[in-house]
Amino acid sequence: MRRTGPKTLAPALEALEQRFGRLDAIKKRIANHHIETPSWAYGDSGTRFGVFKQAGVPRNTFEKMEDAGAVHKFTGVASSVAIHIPWDKVDDFSALSEYAQEQGVRIGAINPNVFQDQAYKLGSLTNEDPSIRQKALDHILDCIEIGKTVDSKLLSLWFADGTNYPGQGDFRRRKQYLLENLTTVYKALPADMRMLLEYKFFEPAWYHTDLADWGMSYAFCRHLGEQAQVLVDLGHHPLATNIEHIVAFLIDEGKLGGFHLNDKKYADDDVSVASFNPYQMFLIYNELAAAEDDPAAQDNIAYMIDQSHNIKPKIEEMIQSVVACQVQYAKALLVDRAALTEAQKNGDVVRAEEILKEAYQTDVSPLLAQVRMEMGVDPDPIIAFRESGYSEKVARERQGEGAVTPGG
Amino acid sequence: MRRTGPKTLAPALEALEQRFGRLDAIKKRIANHHIETPSWAYGDSGTRFGVFKQAGVPRNTFEKMEDAGAVHKFTGVASSVAIHIPWDKVDDFSALSEYAQEQGVRIGAINPNVFQDQAYKLGSLTNEDPSIRQKALDHILDCIEIGKTVDSKLLSLWFADGTNYPGQGDFRRRKQYLLENLTTVYKALPADMRMLLEYKFFEPAWYHTDLADWGMSYAFCRHLGEQAQVLVDLGHHPLATNIEHIVAFLIDEGKLGGFHLNDKKYADDDVSVASFNPYQMFLIYNELAAAEDDPAAQDNIAYMIDQSHNIKPKIEEMIQSVVACQVQYAKALLVDRAALTEAQKNGDVVRAEEILKEAYQTDVSPLLAQVRMEMGVDPDPIIAFRESGYSEKVARERQGEGAVTPGG
Amino acid sequence: MRRTGPKTLAPALEALEQRFGRLDAIKKRIANHHIETPSWAYGDSGTRFGVFKQAGVPRNTFEKMEDAGAVHKFTGVASSVAIHIPWDKVDDFSALSEYAQEQGVRIGAINPNVFQDQAYKLGSLTNEDPSIRQKALDHILDCIEIGKTVDSKLLSLWFADGTNYPGQGDFRRRKQYLLENLTTVYKALPADMRMLLEYKFFEPAWYHTDLADWGMSYAFCRHLGEQAQVLVDLGHHPLATNIEHIVAFLIDEGKLGGFHLNDKKYADDDVSVASFNPYQMFLIYNELAAAEDDPAAQDNIAYMIDQSHNIKPKIEEMIQSVVACQVQYAKALLVDRAALTEAQKNGDVVRAEEILKEAYQTDVSPLLAQVRMEMGVDPDPIIAFRESGYSEKVARERQGEGAVTPGG
Amino acid sequence: MRRTGPKTLAPALEALEQRFGRLDAIKKRIANHHIETPSWAYGDSGTRFGVFKQAGVPRNTFEKMEDAGAVHKFTGVASSVAIHIPWDKVDDFSALSEYAQEQGVRIGAINPNVFQDQAYKLGSLTNEDPSIRQKALDHILDCIEIGKTVDSKLLSLWFADGTNYPGQGDFRRRKQYLLENLTTVYKALPADMRMLLEYKFFEPAWYHTDLADWGMSYAFCRHLGEQAQVLVDLGHHPLATNIEHIVAFLIDEGKLGGFHLNDKKYADDDVSVASFNPYQMFLIYNELAAAEDDPAAQDNIAYMIDQSHNIKPKIEEMIQSVVACQVQYAKALLVDRAALTEAQKNGDVVRAEEILKEAYQTDVSPLLAQVRMEMGVDPDPIIAFRESGYSEKVARERQGEGAVTPGG
Repeated sequence: MRRTGPKTLAPALEALEQRFGRLDAIKKRIANHHIETPSWAYGDSGTRFGVFKQAGVPRNTFEKMEDAGAVHKFTGVASSVAIHIPWDKVDDFSALSEYAQEQGVRIGAINPNVFQDQAYKLGSLTNEDPSIRQKALDHILDCIEIGKTVDSKLLSLWFADGTNYPGQGDFRRRKQYLLENLTTVYKALPADMRMLLEYKFFEPAWYHTDLADWGMSYAFCRHLGEQAQVLVDLGHHPLATNIEHIVAFLIDEGKLGGFHLNDKKYADDDVSVASFNPYQMFLIYNELAAAEDDPAAQDNIAYMIDQSHNIKPKIEEMIQSVVACQVQYAKALLVDRAALTEAQKNGDVVRAEEILKEAYQTDVSPLLAQVRMEMGVDPDPIIAFRESGYSEKVARERQGEGAVTPGG
Repeated sequence: MRRTGPKTLAPALEALEQRFGRLDAIKKRIANHHIETPSWAYGDSGTRFGVFKQAGVPRNTFEKMEDAGAVHKFTGVASSVAIHIPWDKVDDFSALSEYAQEQGVRIGAINPNVFQDQAYKLGSLTNEDPSIRQKALDHILDCIEIGKTVDSKLLSLWFADGTNYPGQGDFRRRKQYLLENLTTVYKALPADMRMLLEYKFFEPAWYHTDLADWGMSYAFCRHLGEQAQVLVDLGHHPLATNIEHIVAFLIDEGKLGGFHLNDKKYADDDVSVASFNPYQMFLIYNELAAAEDDPAAQDNIAYMIDQSHNIKPKIEEMIQSVVACQVQYAKALLVDRAALTEAQKNGDVVRAEEILKEAYQTDVSPLLAQVRMEMGVDPDPIIAFRESGYSEKVARERQGEGAVTPGG
Repeated sequence: MRRTGPKTLAPALEALEQRFGRLDAIKKRIANHHIETPSWAYGDSGTRFGVFKQAGVPRNTFEKMEDAGAVHKFTGVASSVAIHIPWDKVDDFSALSEYAQEQGVRIGAINPNVFQDQAYKLGSLTNEDPSIRQKALDHILDCIEIGKTVDSKLLSLWFADGTNYPGQGDFRRRKQYLLENLTTVYKALPADMRMLLEYKFFEPAWYHTDLADWGMSYAFCRHLGEQAQVLVDLGHHPLATNIEHIVAFLIDEGKLGGFHLNDKKYADDDVSVASFNPYQMFLIYNELAAAEDDPAAQDNIAYMIDQSHNIKPKIEEMIQSVVACQVQYAKALLVDRAALTEAQKNGDVVRAEEILKEAYQTDVSPLLAQVRMEMGVDPDPIIAFRESGYSEKVARERQGEGAVTPGG
Repeated sequence: MRRTGPKTLAPALEALEQRFGRLDAIKKRIANHHIETPSWAYGDSGTRFGVFKQAGVPRNTFEKMEDAGAVHKFTGVASSVAIHIPWDKVDDFSALSEYAQEQGVRIGAINPNVFQDQAYKLGSLTNEDPSIRQKALDHILDCIEIGKTVDSKLLSLWFADGTNYPGQGDFRRRKQYLLENLTTVYKALPADMRMLLEYKFFEPAWYHTDLADWGMSYAFCRHLGEQAQVLVDLGHHPLATNIEHIVAFLIDEGKLGGFHLNDKKYADDDVSVASFNPYQMFLIYNELAAAEDDPAAQDNIAYMIDQSHNIKPKIEEMIQSVVACQVQYAKALLVDRAALTEAQKNGDVVRAEEILKEAYQTDVSPLLAQVRMEMGVDPDPIIAFRESGYSEKVARERQGEGAVTPGG
């Protein structure tokens, strides 16, 4: 990890301008590309085999807001924080909201948790027991109220519902329970709140997940209405899925609500963004940047990180992930779209691919450093964070049990 | 391969009746469960590494009808044959239809081929070149006319369209081309013809397939209208996909058009039905049998085999596959649905699973043998076919080049 | 779940004898096919998203032995119990051993745990810190001593060691650490103790696992010596792996030490044996039964269940899994090997496959019921267990916190 | 595709030197990194669904040598050509060798083909028919003779052998046939020729492949002797395999013979190098570069491209792939190994990863352009090739049927 060389920054930027033209618009888009971080990623987390404890992890939601504030301070673009209920349940959400603002951030998406309570062993909104379905429904409706209190515009729904064994559940009956209950939730949404409906290919249910793929979430969103959109978690697909294609498809349908950003090798690893295949992240951003350029395309897409780093220090990895998003977004903005379209129309496969590769192979570090300096942020976020002494400070101050994030 | 023992049949059937009650309704359903075989599976086929030639393979579509007739003769339930245009293009389709009927079969689904011509290298209905899109469209419209001539009720569409490299195509533009053209096709359908829209996760395009999963086919079918439904090829999913869940989901949406039946281990292997995971086939049939029992559920589902057996003798494997379908369907009919629902409602996971296992572990060979005898068919199809001398006869008669099925 | 009908049993057995000849040798082999259950599967377990608590789960290792004894009582073939150190650490292992024997079981494989302690965050025997490597080594050497005390013949080693991110570790250096330490362990083995070396494709490390596949375990075992053999956990392979081929390959190399039996759909789901693909389990047993018939083949193979059922009642599922093994083993014993070899030599692919299918499709329930009755065990293990009132009894007696199995 | 800007090259190189120190040694290593291209990639190829014909494809092996010569001319590092027998069978191999040298290249690895002949339908060296095993053996022995004639040092063996259905073959018997025959082949090798033994997870056999993974090839190579080593084709693994780990493992065992370079998304797609995951290619090269720096590590590794591009123009894609290798190799050479080791020893996961990322995110185009110019090659290979008019020339000259590569 090297400090950005002030001597080399200017010539590097000049070289970029020479190749790609004036960078002003691109710099503005990078500065405006906000990425939400999740409160739960600041707590201790692990795998089913155990949780490794870190020094200084937050002991409560207020301290999580402090850490999120630190990530925002060192990146300049992580201005909101998703919360998870009941993990982040506090007595006074207005006070939480104010405390967050004092840390420089605001509360973003509200994530109801209907998987952890013992009642949900065999499902929440899909449970055969009507009282358990009602319990889950009530919790989600409560979360909408919390959302109103903290002025959130996003209700982000993920269900662990599914079965472990053939025969355990009736697929169609469970689907009908789910639709019935989500319809009730949908009707309770205020007009400016969107429902994001996440899907997941497997885990924690091994045999089937009630919302197993984007198609299922999409079908539900079509039944529910315009305020319901699909949430794409990058780790929730079968291996070899072309995620950028799904993203483009959903944009074309006006049904892409947002992202849970992370990376995976085999399962839902929830590791740092772009850890294993940064080119895939670039190709996803390539679709998003292209849609931004297209006035006919949908634009209100939420970018939210969802990770559970059980090895790296929490804040450092969050900074790494925010930066990893910026790197690929910046590269996507460098793609010469007119030339790409021309190559596609001409059937020049080699040239079309080379146009993407040229953008991808460009080193955008100087560009990002420049954007940060113009925003008043240190050009080297991780180094600056390490130098700040924040980690040492909270390790000293936060004695006692840190928060543990199940599933995180 | 043993002959059904006449002495053991009666006690075995009696034991089944003792366990499952009167079998009349079940026998009737088995006898009425028709499975279409594909003309192209009777030709020589192989892999990209080569085609292995077999003696006696049909040299033309008329001879394919003879072989399909043989499969029907020895199974009693393979009464229709899917055709592929242009592979099965003949001058006089009425004559073909009549010839088929003389062999005891009728023509089923019409499958237009828009992948083989050199023009389709970069796509058919999604090609950037409008003249190629038109060429593909015209071919499909022609196929509708052929369908009318042979009184087919099914237009079965699969597109090899996709890209091999990032940048090669624009996902959203290709989607729009496809929707525009399929809308034209849809409007040309006669009122009693359904369009089945197949999807495929990968191959022969490596980077993306325009209709990559059931969700994409479903979205198109929703846009097109009621006569458009999704076709599920069992080999066209990512590994570990819960296909029976997709089947149930589509039934609940009224959008399950039919099946291409086969099995796979890793890729789209197109091997005999239930070769690697017969329990999965049972679980799929379990959803279908349950839907048949449910008056509210959709029922007009087409069962079509789609395979390319490059090792086994063609007709024998087709008989094997038809029988494999019957085996799992019969087992699914033995499931005690009332008890299953009760176990599900009680959250008794072990009992629910055991109810499925009991049906699955039942040996239904005696039941199938009995059904066949009541239909006037030999109780042991493969043995009977081997004894019939059909293979030796066609090997003698059909000299010259056999038909080769690309991709088959 | 139906009771075995005493009236139907005799004719069913007669029918089996008619088809397969005298069953005496087969019945003897089924009765002698012992399957070890793991102590840790009797405790509460879950996923990273949470643990669901069950009534009556054992509070300590002694109570786990009671439950294992119950599984043995109702199956007759689960006569030994694998233990996990430190989860099953007791002050007096001789006392534990005696208590187990009073429950009708004995202690089987010793499984050292070098993944749970906070020290092992970045690895155990592969850790860069020599003091942590030594700590792990010492623990394993202690386990050998425990093994001697309880007269165990198996040291079963699984390492969670691996990395989550590129660059985190040096593959070759870690490999050298591992070999050095395992060599020390190997030298400490008594002459009649085998080391079983497990591999795992992924989890809990996401980027790489130090022993990632059978080839790596095999290479280590070759370096170590004859007492080191590979342990195959059925859930530790990439999707679509042909496990029966690996089993046959290892048998041919004399390097198959044993199994961790379970099933999976996508990840290492650790669900009941044969839940998703019973035919695969049959095909694996087919290789094992064939090897038993072959005097030249290796024979000392350990069959051990390794599962973590977080939905089903613990003991019931263990009984289900033991029975599931017996079902497939019994079917494998029915395969007509001489006919199979003949079909293979003749290149008769259809017949070879049908020979396997005939054995697989046979209902072996009557055969197993008969074997059980001859062993003095109830013919219907799950029903008998439910009727025994054991679950209700322990739920009453075992108040307080049940044992929790991380990773289980 | 832009021309290297002569004005920007010098400052870019200066910036690289400022960051990474003197580049002389790195430039030398890049210039010496030779990559073999395969004769069969110059012919027409396709998928099982069809072959798309290109203008100007070689009609014979001599013309393939011309095209390989062109790739070498425009890259400077593709100095040898692998040949495939019988596709490249000529009457006079000495003449072919001379002709190749006139094109600037030499003949590299000899690849016997024992999969295409109708005789090999059920296997070659593993066939139950001893006369077919002998036929395959004789062919391979002939290939060794051809290798001697053309002074090749590599016999590269891939077997399509496997089965499509359970029961079709006996795994252990086939393994024994294979070992017996490979032992004969091994003994026929001249002292300076290596046998490279390739493995493949699946295809064209669907149920099992006799050499299915690196572990099987490794086990055979151990049995055979020092001249036998494993060949890693990047497309021949299950999804999510950590290939760089296997590479490191084999290097540590002294058993890495070489590579077949390509990329894949789902199956064995055989597309251009680094098409879908260039970071993975970097991580593989990172292991290779590290081994080059380690005097104790193995070094005689063969780099060979194996692709079948059915969409892109043949020569252009080959140039793309050679360049793609160079890009990742150059980045791997920039990794600060001392700092990486230090971070690993300190357990600083974030820093270790960032060290790799810094090298990976560096734009090495200027470095490669400089190396090329110093070698007397055009700095922009694809542009230069397009400008050369070679494609147009051969399209004019090579009338008649082009060579078709099955499986390509």
